[in-house]
Amino acid sequence: MTDIRHLALRCRDAAQVVAALPTVAKDAMLRAMADALLSDAQAILAANAQDMAAAQAKGVGPAMLDRLRLDDARLTGIADALREVAALPDPVGQVTRRETRPNGICVERVRTPLGVVAMIYEARPNVTADAAALCLKAGNGVILRGGSEALRSNLAIAAALQRALVAAGVPAAALTIVEDLRRETMLELLQLTDIVDLAIPRGGEGLIRFVAEHARVPVIKHYKGVCHLYVDADADQDLALRLLVDGKVSRPSACNALETLLVHAGAAAEFLPRAAATLRGHGVELRGDAATRAIFAGAGEATEDDYDAEYLDLVIAIRVVDSLQAAIAHIRRHGSDHTEVIVTRDAGNAEKFVQALRSAVVMVNASSRFSDGGELGLGAEIGISTTRLHAYGPMGLEALTVERFVVRGEGQTRNIHG
Amino acid sequence: MTDIRHLALRCRDAAQVVAALPTVAKDAMLRAMADALLSDAQAILAANAQDMAAAQAKGVGPAMLDRLRLDDARLTGIADALREVAALPDPVGQVTRRETRPNGICVERVRTPLGVVAMIYEARPNVTADAAALCLKAGNGVILRGGSEALRSNLAIAAALQRALVAAGVPAAALTIVEDLRRETMLELLQLTDIVDLAIPRGGEGLIRFVAEHARVPVIKHYKGVCHLYVDADADQDLALRLLVDGKVSRPSACNALETLLVHAGAAAEFLPRAAATLRGHGVELRGDAATRAIFAGAGEATEDDYDAEYLDLVIAIRVVDSLQAAIAHIRRHGSDHTEVIVTRDAGNAEKFVQALRSAVVMVNASSRFSDGGELGLGAEIGISTTRLHAYGPMGLEALTVERFVVRGEGQTRNIHG
Repeated sequence: MTDIRHLALRCRDAAQVVAALPTVAKDAMLRAMADALLSDAQAILAANAQDMAAAQAKGVGPAMLDRLRLDDARLTGIADALREVAALPDPVGQVTRRETRPNGICVERVRTPLGVVAMIYEARPNVTADAAALCLKAGNGVILRGGSEALRSNLAIAAALQRALVAAGVPAAALTIVEDLRRETMLELLQLTDIVDLAIPRGGEGLIRFVAEHARVPVIKHYKGVCHLYVDADADQDLALRLLVDGKVSRPSACNALETLLVHAGAAAEFLPRAAATLRGHGVELRGDAATRAIFAGAGEATEDDYDAEYLDLVIAIRVVDSLQAAIAHIRRHGSDHTEVIVTRDAGNAEKFVQALRSAVVMVNASSRFSDGGELGLGAEIGISTTRLHAYGPMGLEALTVERFVVRGEGQTRNIHG
Repeated sequence: MTDIRHLALRCRDAAQVVAALPTVAKDAMLRAMADALLSDAQAILAANAQDMAAAQAKGVGPAMLDRLRLDDARLTGIADALREVAALPDPVGQVTRRETRPNGICVERVRTPLGVVAMIYEARPNVTADAAALCLKAGNGVILRGGSEALRSNLAIAAALQRALVAAGVPAAALTIVEDLRRETMLELLQLTDIVDLAIPRGGEGLIRFVAEHARVPVIKHYKGVCHLYVDADADQDLALRLLVDGKVSRPSACNALETLLVHAGAAAEFLPRAAATLRGHGVELRGDAATRAIFAGAGEATEDDYDAEYLDLVIAIRVVDSLQAAIAHIRRHGSDHTEVIVTRDAGNAEKFVQALRSAVVMVNASSRFSDGGELGLGAEIGISTTRLHAYGPMGLEALTVERFVVRGEGQTRNIHG
């Protein structure tokens, strides 16, 4: 038997122990995981320093170095996040519906763990703890396949967390780190259809395409966010400006950051100069169509590629549209089904925008940056799904379970009587 | 552009029209589909007669011929099923949760169509109408790829249904029949990740394996049902016998029929002779382990393969187990995650059985034959999912939708203030 299959089987066996844990035991285990993380701070930071040094030696860019870096404050943040997951309601065993049928059988829909979740991600070591906490709280085993840059950090974090698992009577394999980071091993993991119930790829476009292309197990993609803000003819322009700045500037590297601004022609003459001045004041590069550049000559030229781009940077694409319908058509063509915002005082237009778009999150007069599990009330999120199945948009604990049927009767039969 | 891609794109465009239809318009369309089916009865039955003749000439077996055959009564049944779907509540637009967050944004979870559903199935022409009705009611477009034996029947049914679509202002392509039944065309359909949102294979093991193996689009499998009845030490044996007969005999070809009987050693001496006599009276062949044959010498010998088998026939595998735990271990090893039943008067054992198994449907003192969308209160079903994601167990209309987020605010921002 291959190593990865063997690891996955051990994770599956351990997952059965997690699935059977009572809520109080799981929550105590999660708090102990937070404690273990902090008591291992020195070892974890030392491992992370090695990862950082190796990454720097390899010439890794500053953005990735920042994602990779841990310090005391970040470690405290990770531990706090574990405690927050412990405090969330347990989805496992929740009865979402109960009905007694005319023949007297009682039919319940009950949330139950998925089984084994494989997280495929890149250089953020915090994902190791976050994903483990959410998967375990939802009663699952988790196989974590992170990036090579973060391997030492991930192993040190996992060692701490696993100690808390074992103390709670859960086999360490319930939280399995894949150390063999060869592509062929990942491929094999993604084909273990009899063991892995769900793969969640989270990271850059290349990683997600690779997983989606090669997985035989079910995949929920966390794909790019080409998020749009549409300023309607009848918009409160001060409000629009606030949402634009929050969406574009407050954290441009987030998938819920704005990438494209669409402005109704009736609002453009007034709004675009203000927007341009404000965005530039925040260091944002503007790329617009001809109509935009006619109003604001300082904007660069936007190509079709700009409208498809997830910049994740201080750049924004701008287009002037003649109608709500044209804005919707633009988003349908260029959007990534992630998050779209309309700014309008016209309730009818807001409703048309909501109905016409099939994106995971559609907002009226609110910032795209709220497209986040915590902000939308899920408590925490394992990511934002752009797969239109099972979970669409921010994925919380419930999305790491599935509903099954539990039926209780007193001997009822369907066809045979007496 | 290839033909199948072209067909699928047309279906996707048409699906947007279906998604926007108000409930009353959809329901009227579904009733008109039922009427059209009956008014085309002659043409449909003539096409079916051609399919039957060709299948007989090819030497197709009686079970498949029966599945293929249409007559007036069956056609009336199909039309009635369409009207029942029309009468079901519309899942699209249902708000499943609504919460106002502390910052004042109102967050709704709203059911929305999946988009384009591809049904891959075999020789039952009724699936053509049933699946179309459910997919359309849930606001989706549907691509139907049936078996070659039923192609003439399927095309005649689709022609009737499409007339009703067009009369409702929906492009006929919302219900697309794939006429090119080559494997490579199906493969291409299953790789249209930018167009097809879900593939549902329904049929024999070979078909489902083929689809699961080759699909790049998300798949929800309707795989085999190796359903178990476990008779606990403390069972009401009359009740157990009733559930056994209903589960095994009433429709052995159904996926929710029983395939294996597990009997606690403490109940075996009394129960097995009665069960054996009754089953044999219904023409059921018995295959048991040594303990079974020691009690009932007339049983054949069961191999490990018997315990993995979905007979779909008047055959049952039997094993005597020493404990509830042994029954659970047997089901975990040999089950197909479909439907399991415990017969017991011991509420603690019932609960252990429910908790220890991860099958889609777990029943206490009720017939496995209730594992059906209609019987469990879903109204109708497109099949029974054995995929532990999105929908697990009987799949009704809701399972043909996904929840998305609609957020309404008054200018709230996440990070930028003022």
